[in-house]
Amino acid sequence: MSGMTPEEFRTAGHALIDWIADHRERIPDLPVRATVAPGEIVAALPPAAPEQPESFAAVLADLERVVVPGITQTQHPRFYGWFPSNAALASVLGDIASSGLGALGITWQSAPALTEVEVVVTEWLRAETGLPQGWRGAIHDTASTACLVALLAARERATDNSEFGGGLQSEPAPLVVYTSPHAHSSVAKAALLAGFGADNLRRVEVDPTTYALDPAALATAIEADVAAGRRPAAVVVAIGTTGTTAIDPLAEVVRVLDRVPGRAAAGTGAVRPWVHVDAAMAGSALLLPERRWMIEGIHGADSLSWNPHKWMGTILDCSLLYVADAEQLAQVMSTNPSYLRSSADEDLARAGVPQYKDWGIPLGRRFRALKLWFHLRLDGLEAIRARLRRDLETANWLADQVRRTPGWRVLAPVSLQTVCLRHEPPGTVTAEGDVLDGPALDAHTLAWAEAVNGSGLAFVSPALLDGTWMVRISIGAEATERTDVAALWDLLQRVVKNNL
Amino acid sequence: MSGMTPEEFRTAGHALIDWIADHRERIPDLPVRATVAPGEIVAALPPAAPEQPESFAAVLADLERVVVPGITQTQHPRFYGWFPSNAALASVLGDIASSGLGALGITWQSAPALTEVEVVVTEWLRAETGLPQGWRGAIHDTASTACLVALLAARERATDNSEFGGGLQSEPAPLVVYTSPHAHSSVAKAALLAGFGADNLRRVEVDPTTYALDPAALATAIEADVAAGRRPAAVVVAIGTTGTTAIDPLAEVVRVLDRVPGRAAAGTGAVRPWVHVDAAMAGSALLLPERRWMIEGIHGADSLSWNPHKWMGTILDCSLLYVADAEQLAQVMSTNPSYLRSSADEDLARAGVPQYKDWGIPLGRRFRALKLWFHLRLDGLEAIRARLRRDLETANWLADQVRRTPGWRVLAPVSLQTVCLRHEPPGTVTAEGDVLDGPALDAHTLAWAEAVNGSGLAFVSPALLDGTWMVRISIGAEATERTDVAALWDLLQRVVKNNL
Repeated sequence: MSGMTPEEFRTAGHALIDWIADHRERIPDLPVRATVAPGEIVAALPPAAPEQPESFAAVLADLERVVVPGITQTQHPRFYGWFPSNAALASVLGDIASSGLGALGITWQSAPALTEVEVVVTEWLRAETGLPQGWRGAIHDTASTACLVALLAARERATDNSEFGGGLQSEPAPLVVYTSPHAHSSVAKAALLAGFGADNLRRVEVDPTTYALDPAALATAIEADVAAGRRPAAVVVAIGTTGTTAIDPLAEVVRVLDRVPGRAAAGTGAVRPWVHVDAAMAGSALLLPERRWMIEGIHGADSLSWNPHKWMGTILDCSLLYVADAEQLAQVMSTNPSYLRSSADEDLARAGVPQYKDWGIPLGRRFRALKLWFHLRLDGLEAIRARLRRDLETANWLADQVRRTPGWRVLAPVSLQTVCLRHEPPGTVTAEGDVLDGPALDAHTLAWAEAVNGSGLAFVSPALLDGTWMVRISIGAEATERTDVAALWDLLQRVVKNNL
Repeated sequence: MSGMTPEEFRTAGHALIDWIADHRERIPDLPVRATVAPGEIVAALPPAAPEQPESFAAVLADLERVVVPGITQTQHPRFYGWFPSNAALASVLGDIASSGLGALGITWQSAPALTEVEVVVTEWLRAETGLPQGWRGAIHDTASTACLVALLAARERATDNSEFGGGLQSEPAPLVVYTSPHAHSSVAKAALLAGFGADNLRRVEVDPTTYALDPAALATAIEADVAAGRRPAAVVVAIGTTGTTAIDPLAEVVRVLDRVPGRAAAGTGAVRPWVHVDAAMAGSALLLPERRWMIEGIHGADSLSWNPHKWMGTILDCSLLYVADAEQLAQVMSTNPSYLRSSADEDLARAGVPQYKDWGIPLGRRFRALKLWFHLRLDGLEAIRARLRRDLETANWLADQVRRTPGWRVLAPVSLQTVCLRHEPPGTVTAEGDVLDGPALDAHTLAWAEAVNGSGLAFVSPALLDGTWMVRISIGAEATERTDVAALWDLLQRVVKNNL
């Protein structure tokens, strides 16, 4: 055998563990944003793969020299961009164990532990997040993929499994998908990839103050489509939109759907539009009993996804998709060639153990349940909940500071851990918040946000809201304490005066 | 901060590295097949997540007690099941580095190194596998996903991007996908998920001896569809089918398509059916110049996927999808919301650096390029090529033994590293190979394969071929030497006599 031996791995592995521990310790001293220009890393690397082995020292040196400056440090205490993307060290250990085992998840038989630990940890989190008993979960890479899977299941339910017949083209009445214009971009992508077409994706109006989906507008849109002979196939409800973490009113959406005229499919009764709940970021907060109100109405939904790899902090990639009817999902996604059958298949069905290959797109799966298992066991739920509550309080604290400071405005309800704010130079905005000079305001906002990000001292995300740029301060990096946010607030106040 | 600290991680990480090195050393002494019954692991674990942290020692003990018996050891020298699923330790180090860094790949800006190392290693492997200059690659989780992405791109090319209009339902003429009945199950799954429908998936006949797709049958099928007003949208060519590693004749398929009457799309000229090459397992062999003939005709294809995580041995998940026209793919899969835009976007386009979010389904991506980078650098290409050649020779050696032993038969050409064989008790099969007593033969085959697998001494995969069960011996575990295969051959000869 010519590859690296276990003894060589042992030596290199110890050096790598030390490197990782050292790296994680010094993150607060690194620039938050990556410091390289486009193409710089490509240019720094050789044009061809090496014929002969290189030393581990050489590779580790490149990790330091080439890779580290090319990473925006989402583990940094002053990372406030996009959404939190934590990589709790307890979960990193689980990910390392997964890599070390080198297990192959294609069927239950290829790695029973890979399947069954996933059954256990997804059931743990189902119970801890208040999802209905009987809902079953699986780990996907991202909420984008989970949303695509949900919309494929929705498409097939609405068409009596057209995939096994003439396909989507054989369905005469257009199928329609509804969501908020504030839903994540992956919702539109999933609808388009599933074949619905942009013409059949309805962006339902939102409440102008809360930015949450307006159920009355949803009802109107559905009625118009039904009257025109189109068929409502799915509604994607955002619990925590990307821009402002608005919380769509799930219970009211469900009540609207209760009144939709059902389509009587031969022998199967009426088919209701599928309700998929995208709680990618906010799902972590469901671990807090006092936040369960966010999914009131869940018994009327069909699926929910959330990402432990965001705020909760189980390292990427770890997105959960729960479904009310796992059997229907497995029918849509199933494959059963002879070379994947085994003598255990009937026993599996009896034991209620799934073949996860039939719950998602890929056949081969990594042992991702280990990182959740390690994370929950080594950190414990109590500490995770305490951290989430800390972040909610810090966000409220920051919003208070902003609200009481002249020239600054909080632009949306702080429903979770993200504060949407703007600094408004004189003459750009009225006291009531009406924009007078959009171009000047946008130029100012983008300039100071870039000044912050370019400084390396903190990282924030500009985003459009009602057609004007604002800045999202998304709190929730594992290392971010109140003092870090206070330092950020000082920095923002200095930077808008060109005084870094 | 309440989670695990870097110092706690350091201590636990060292213990875990030692555990992994010890585990990899003792794999030859473990049963190859997992030894647990369905539901056994679920029953062994607590019903709820822990509130308080547990010790790392407790978790590590469960890894040993609960997980290891629940893994079919694909790294075992006597693993001959499915296809090789290697996890070279050099690549495991890269995977560990990825976990340790905790980088977030959503845009170039979130982790420039994640994007650019991927550009570099995919270009390295493009050149080393003889793919055309200008083809560009990205890492996906599996070939299943890569095939779905290719068929979505095919669907959109064939319909002038129906996703941006009325969707697939707005296309009147049915779109058709062609593949071999021996193609991997994921091809049918991808076609169905992409919305084509089973009625529009043609299983083209194969040559009865080589099991490779018959180009004349493909031409006939396409002609019939075109005559009936249907539109050929895609052909999936298998280079190395799952059952017998048959190699579909790509060059001849391309010549057939050259003669297909093109559909004149407004202003864009004729649209040719998309040719996707699924070389999931066999792609590793393209690293050997003497095997490049397998993809003769590639200049007439549109995409090719192969999995370094199979035979080449970069740990799962690491599947490459190369496309001839990355811009078209990015158009199909693109998203560009405001919160993901950055000031670097124009510089990126100028530098030719991709936004990989627009090349696949998920937005968030792990730093998977690191495991390829580490693997290629720490092991070197020369050693990887030597191992692949070793396996090709070993497969031929085994086939020779089988052919010269009475009562045994090799059932398909040994075109790569997989030997399809059968033991034929008297009266079940004629000298020419015609089956006389199928039920008796199947019962015998499944019984001895289960005896092998149940012994824990080796693991093989039964599969159906021409309606009768056979056994696939898929050689290519990194640790498998000729002596291991000789031991397997002894075992098989004993086991068919009920004499383990």
